[in-house]
Amino acid sequence: MVQAFVAACYEAGMETVVCSPGSRNSSLVIAFDEHPEFNCYVIHDERSAAFIGMGMAQETGKPVGIVCTSGSALLNYYPAVAEAYYQRIPLVVISADRPEKWINQGDGQTIVQRGVYTNHIEAEEQLDEAMTPEEVRRKVIGAFETISRYSKGPVHFNIALEEPLYNTMEIDGVLPEKKNWERVPHGLSQHDLDIVKKGLTAEKKMILIGQMPKNPYLQELLKTLADDPSFAILVENTSNLVSMKWIHCIDRTLQGMTAEQEKEFAPDVLITLGGAVVSKRIKAYLRKYKPEMHWKIGYDFPEMNTYEALTNSFRVSESSFIKTVLDNRGDLITSNFGGKWKQRDFVAQTKAESFLQHAPFSDLKAIELMLDCIPEHAHIHMGNSSIVRYCQLFDPISSMTYFSNRGTSGIDGSTSTAVGAALAKQDVLHVLLTGDVSFFYDSNALWNNYRIPNLRIILINNGGGGIFNIIKGPRDSKQNTVYFDAKHPFHATHIARAFHVDYFSAGTEEELLEAMEAFYTYDKDGGMKLLEIHTAAIDNHLILDSYFNAIS
Amino acid sequence: MVQAFVAACYEAGMETVVCSPGSRNSSLVIAFDEHPEFNCYVIHDERSAAFIGMGMAQETGKPVGIVCTSGSALLNYYPAVAEAYYQRIPLVVISADRPEKWINQGDGQTIVQRGVYTNHIEAEEQLDEAMTPEEVRRKVIGAFETISRYSKGPVHFNIALEEPLYNTMEIDGVLPEKKNWERVPHGLSQHDLDIVKKGLTAEKKMILIGQMPKNPYLQELLKTLADDPSFAILVENTSNLVSMKWIHCIDRTLQGMTAEQEKEFAPDVLITLGGAVVSKRIKAYLRKYKPEMHWKIGYDFPEMNTYEALTNSFRVSESSFIKTVLDNRGDLITSNFGGKWKQRDFVAQTKAESFLQHAPFSDLKAIELMLDCIPEHAHIHMGNSSIVRYCQLFDPISSMTYFSNRGTSGIDGSTSTAVGAALAKQDVLHVLLTGDVSFFYDSNALWNNYRIPNLRIILINNGGGGIFNIIKGPRDSKQNTVYFDAKHPFHATHIARAFHVDYFSAGTEEELLEAMEAFYTYDKDGGMKLLEIHTAAIDNHLILDSYFNAIS
Repeated sequence: MVQAFVAACYEAGMETVVCSPGSRNSSLVIAFDEHPEFNCYVIHDERSAAFIGMGMAQETGKPVGIVCTSGSALLNYYPAVAEAYYQRIPLVVISADRPEKWINQGDGQTIVQRGVYTNHIEAEEQLDEAMTPEEVRRKVIGAFETISRYSKGPVHFNIALEEPLYNTMEIDGVLPEKKNWERVPHGLSQHDLDIVKKGLTAEKKMILIGQMPKNPYLQELLKTLADDPSFAILVENTSNLVSMKWIHCIDRTLQGMTAEQEKEFAPDVLITLGGAVVSKRIKAYLRKYKPEMHWKIGYDFPEMNTYEALTNSFRVSESSFIKTVLDNRGDLITSNFGGKWKQRDFVAQTKAESFLQHAPFSDLKAIELMLDCIPEHAHIHMGNSSIVRYCQLFDPISSMTYFSNRGTSGIDGSTSTAVGAALAKQDVLHVLLTGDVSFFYDSNALWNNYRIPNLRIILINNGGGGIFNIIKGPRDSKQNTVYFDAKHPFHATHIARAFHVDYFSAGTEEELLEAMEAFYTYDKDGGMKLLEIHTAAIDNHLILDSYFNAIS
Repeated sequence: MVQAFVAACYEAGMETVVCSPGSRNSSLVIAFDEHPEFNCYVIHDERSAAFIGMGMAQETGKPVGIVCTSGSALLNYYPAVAEAYYQRIPLVVISADRPEKWINQGDGQTIVQRGVYTNHIEAEEQLDEAMTPEEVRRKVIGAFETISRYSKGPVHFNIALEEPLYNTMEIDGVLPEKKNWERVPHGLSQHDLDIVKKGLTAEKKMILIGQMPKNPYLQELLKTLADDPSFAILVENTSNLVSMKWIHCIDRTLQGMTAEQEKEFAPDVLITLGGAVVSKRIKAYLRKYKPEMHWKIGYDFPEMNTYEALTNSFRVSESSFIKTVLDNRGDLITSNFGGKWKQRDFVAQTKAESFLQHAPFSDLKAIELMLDCIPEHAHIHMGNSSIVRYCQLFDPISSMTYFSNRGTSGIDGSTSTAVGAALAKQDVLHVLLTGDVSFFYDSNALWNNYRIPNLRIILINNGGGGIFNIIKGPRDSKQNTVYFDAKHPFHATHIARAFHVDYFSAGTEEELLEAMEAFYTYDKDGGMKLLEIHTAAIDNHLILDSYFNAIS
């Protein structure tokens, strides 16, 4: 049964699994290992293992399996499963279980595994040893079809196994042909097209793009569209689309608007593409000045009404929709709505650059320096909480690829996700930018037996939850130091040493720049490198306040 | 609303919360902090925070709250919630959430929190700001009543909050009277009593006791019962009941039975008390030689049919049932069934002691030495996997209290649980015995701002998942070194240093004994101490094999 399961996973397009040691799942691990085409990794901490698998799937776009034993093991997977669910990543959970009759009967490492992820899973299948290979295959292929053709996201196979089997079975030497899944195509109906044509005659149109993988064709289409000044195009770095013609730093551009300007810059038609948007300000802004029409483009979460103004959800690909827009916009629009947005962005950018030139060393300044120093074509992984927000203040670099766990926006798995991406794509440099709370939270990401010479970790250690000094409420509460910022005295130097990671440290701009050369030197026989930037003694939030004052 | 919630939690008997920093939960944190009677702790990693809270509740028997923000935070709680569910511990999950209308609408840190723990929770309540204080109180008291009077285990309050509120409200200075919950009493019906009376006439009766808190009254009753030689009383150290008259080392006693002996030692009537049983052998043995009657005693999990022979589930307290047995056993039984068990145990014990006297340094020998050296009246926390199994080979010491996470038997939270227990009961010494996989898994237990001078961690580092060398299947598979044992080269010295923990190390019996004095010296201004015992180079499983051969 187990061999049939593994063969079907291969046929469905999976080639990589991350296994966590256990007894109940041993026959699965052996079967994946003995299959000639699977790459198998071993990670002990299931929370980290799941984020590593997710990072691999995020990086490659291909399904990646995570294989665990019964009991609480699969509960430790849950944070990554939820992230995969909201980020639409094909993470394949494979949990070994006891046969149904032994659930809740007092045996060790036994919980109710069925349905554990119900709120955040695209498909779940229960398998057991009584099934024929063809039944197993049908269930596996069916589940993969769900997350390949109709939606995206995680899937869960819960496999009931009698006493663990460690002996192996010969498998048929002929590999099945791999399925080549294609997304079920959708198109706009004539009715939809009429709505779009009518909407495009509006003078104030905004395209707001959330998280998505690199898409060169869409990039070209949007660059063409930017020549039409009636469109304001707002794109965060997580969208992996870059053009001088668009607005990339949304908060920077929104800063200091008068009430009158707020009305003036609000769109009549809002078109949204991609997943999560980082900027809370643009969400609040659009909820306050609701567009007459909001078109949500894309296959996933069609009901998601982020701006409380959703009028239409068009389940078509982003590229095909923008092509439709290009083909159907009127020629007679004289609006300079997009031009005005770009102009405002340009003014803010100039002011920001001038402020930053003389800004004191701080979280903000360190992020600027670090983004400047990252070698071209790197994959940048942004930790959650303040780091990803700081990064939004700088225009993206087109050769880079940007990642961040914005599905659930948790701080729990950023390092593991970067480790997974670096293992999955070894021919590019991966750089993780992270904060101290996020780093310590997930320090088990470093607890593995792999050399990862293509991963650099930049840790900005401000000694606590710096985000709570940025949010106005907690900053001013008397509980801040103990409960929110929650200062801690710990550094990463010993963590790095514990896991044999090369350690660099900097507390000033000079030290930082000095460390760069050695830090980015690539040694194929080396391992990860970690640079810790110490900013705990600095009033980072005051410098950020000054930044926003300067650009107002 | 939040103040009413906190007040009701106090009234229901809760006095301690472990908070994890977040924005959405900030008003909750502030309200708990401002309440004059609550002890509040701060732990960043929610997985660890939940196990710390669980350790506190396990140690004190009182409900302990864990308070987190929205999103994946509460998924990180899940391993501890499941452990609390199966170990019947009053862990109170308090999660902040967004208002219902914002769920799945593309906001950050938002998942479907309602029902997340459905499979493993005793009660769940949804609260929101529209509720009156009295409605809130009713829901809170109701949920606490469920886990106090009718069952035990975890409960989940999911609290929908509009924009986080950091300002505080004056609370009424008069504290409500605390509820004094009493378990709803049950008794045996006349029908039940007839069954018991009849069953007690059997010649071969076995009482098998699983995990439970110390219970001196039950201890005395069982000691009296042990004078009746028709009863064999099998008690693991996790039962916290100790007597020379009982069999404490079950596997040691079962070792080397012939088929004929197996039949001879099998009971006709099996009476089980308490929670999980560690020994897999006794489970397999009783499933093979099914008793004619199996009476399960206790309030929880009445349907649990661990030995496939359950005939009656008596929902009465353990003490009252044993009292009934004492009052109703016949005087005419001449069986020496219990005597024979005790005799067999005595022979095995003598052989084991003689083997251990000359046993080489190893996991087994280190455990023996460590159990001998732990100061009297300590609370011993046994890590899962091989450690807790090794500990079952030694007779328990009556002044000690034994803990282990045998609810789900996960390796995920042993250290955090011990940290929680040590924080909750500061006037006793706590000693954690753990293995390296379990220790590294949960190293974030050390990432906190508390000095814990009453906690000692003894880490047996055999460089991987040593349990898989003990289980016969994986040991012999060609995947063992990579996937199961999964050797790793990491030591705890740098982890200890990272978190300012005093570090001791030993690689031989002499070094171990030499370290003892300094290791157990109590310094009220000091912190935790960690002793790492290196056994990676030793064939631990061969020495364990020899042990079992020697006692056969």
